[in-house]
Amino acid sequence: MRFSPRDNAFFDLFAASASNLREGVRLLSEALASDADRAEIAVRLKEVEHQGDEHTHEIVRRVNSTFVTPFDREDIYRLSGALDDVLDDVEAALDLMVLYRVGDLPSGVGDLVDVLDRAAELTAGAMPRLQTPSDLTDYWIEVNRLENQADQDYRRLLARIFSGEYDALTVHKLKDVVDTLESAVDGFETVANIVEQIAIKES
Amino acid sequence: MRFSPRDNAFFDLFAASASNLREGVRLLSEALASDADRAEIAVRLKEVEHQGDEHTHEIVRRVNSTFVTPFDREDIYRLSGALDDVLDDVEAALDLMVLYRVGDLPSGVGDLVDVLDRAAELTAGAMPRLQTPSDLTDYWIEVNRLENQADQDYRRLLARIFSGEYDALTVHKLKDVVDTLESAVDGFETVANIVEQIAIKES
Amino acid sequence: MRFSPRDNAFFDLFAASASNLREGVRLLSEALASDADRAEIAVRLKEVEHQGDEHTHEIVRRVNSTFVTPFDREDIYRLSGALDDVLDDVEAALDLMVLYRVGDLPSGVGDLVDVLDRAAELTAGAMPRLQTPSDLTDYWIEVNRLENQADQDYRRLLARIFSGEYDALTVHKLKDVVDTLESAVDGFETVANIVEQIAIKES
Repeated sequence: MRFSPRDNAFFDLFAASASNLREGVRLLSEALASDADRAEIAVRLKEVEHQGDEHTHEIVRRVNSTFVTPFDREDIYRLSGALDDVLDDVEAALDLMVLYRVGDLPSGVGDLVDVLDRAAELTAGAMPRLQTPSDLTDYWIEVNRLENQADQDYRRLLARIFSGEYDALTVHKLKDVVDTLESAVDGFETVANIVEQIAIKES
Repeated sequence: MRFSPRDNAFFDLFAASASNLREGVRLLSEALASDADRAEIAVRLKEVEHQGDEHTHEIVRRVNSTFVTPFDREDIYRLSGALDDVLDDVEAALDLMVLYRVGDLPSGVGDLVDVLDRAAELTAGAMPRLQTPSDLTDYWIEVNRLENQADQDYRRLLARIFSGEYDALTVHKLKDVVDTLESAVDGFETVANIVEQIAIKES
Repeated sequence: MRFSPRDNAFFDLFAASASNLREGVRLLSEALASDADRAEIAVRLKEVEHQGDEHTHEIVRRVNSTFVTPFDREDIYRLSGALDDVLDDVEAALDLMVLYRVGDLPSGVGDLVDVLDRAAELTAGAMPRLQTPSDLTDYWIEVNRLENQADQDYRRLLARIFSGEYDALTVHKLKDVVDTLESAVDGFETVANIVEQIAIKES
């Protein structure tokens, strides 16, 4: 099925939310460079997060005031919340890097952020096509595949962090940063799973 | 809309559950004092938790045996489960303090417990008004605001715990206690989000 | 109520998924022995996990292509996802043991795996009876009881791990393994709670 044109406002808001999330991941990626001014980038990322909150609130307001929604109110609510959760994790990861003054990061961290970057790109590409969710099969399969791969990389990264290369406090700090990145990857999978469920209902 | 009077039993049970949760948080707060007998308070908190389990089971039994419920069965189920989860975390936090013999806690822990105390007060105030969920907007906005603030405090508290002030095992113990408190704060936000969703459906 | 015979395919798939999960837990249990070849068992567990993924995909495919499902599409989806999550944790726990080369484990780890074994047995026994979910009360009460007990054991195990008996990096590794096992126990409770909710709706 196709949703009717009057529903465009919701689709536009989800597209804007995912596009904003992609910008947030881009800033996180920029912050990994060893000469990056992380504190300054964190300020810009916080602005991106506030922008994301605006999109989320606008979606919730619109769900409240609209009689007919393009798909279940609960799914609209869950999807906007799930996009918001990913951006929260992305912002938290950079905030922790700044607070902990972690300095150079093990190379595996860059690999995890690359996965986030790819998942953000896929998600930003999928949201504008939410009107025909059954066409998004490739998107959610690929995000699930990325998450599975990231899971493997994450555990191998932990094994390195626990290998004796780092002092006790640095181990704590790196683990916390890496756990937050892993949670962001999981969050992209949650978004993809919600889209899959919407497609199942609409089919 | 307003729910009909026959539904009062559910609202009374949610009010009792939230009031019981507030008592649990009060005990946790009491246990922070440096001269508190934490083991003894933990026994009383465990009784409060058992009382909470009774409320939860009573709600589930009633959902099973009642033909008409004031709002979706699933939302009743989710809300009672979410209140139960917060109390579990509150009880777990104190149990860990006792098991780990953590002694004096960094002052940021008291700030987190103050947030729990405020969220418990707001939740206990909101539950008796669940019959008109659309009036609870201030409640869930404020709990979300508290959770955002607590997130910032939590990360700054971790930065202090990882600063070198504490020995390696104390770092582990404090992190575990603090993570459990942060999970309790998140739990109050989950409760507020469920109430918001109930209000959206009923509007 | 009883579900109609035409729905048997779903029940068969859930039974197969739970039986496969039980085999995964059995392998994890085997891997705890001090003379076990964990890397070799991990390879076999990975195959069991792939088999589980097949069941999950088959359930989702069937939800998509079937007009009438025995219970809510969303609950079918959630239940298969929840079974999948437990197996992911079981597989992750063994993968971490291998990656971290943890060697002998504290005895409390065996107790947690025994709980997983019992929960897997109960779940495998319950899934073939999903056609009459109201008969499964004993199952979900017992899994909830097991989870509560495991929570206590888990915290006492952490207290031992943080007691000073292990070096700093071993503490990190053991905590990570034990957290993953605890998450698997929670996952069995999630499965039981979904079954309870299905029973409530069908009653």
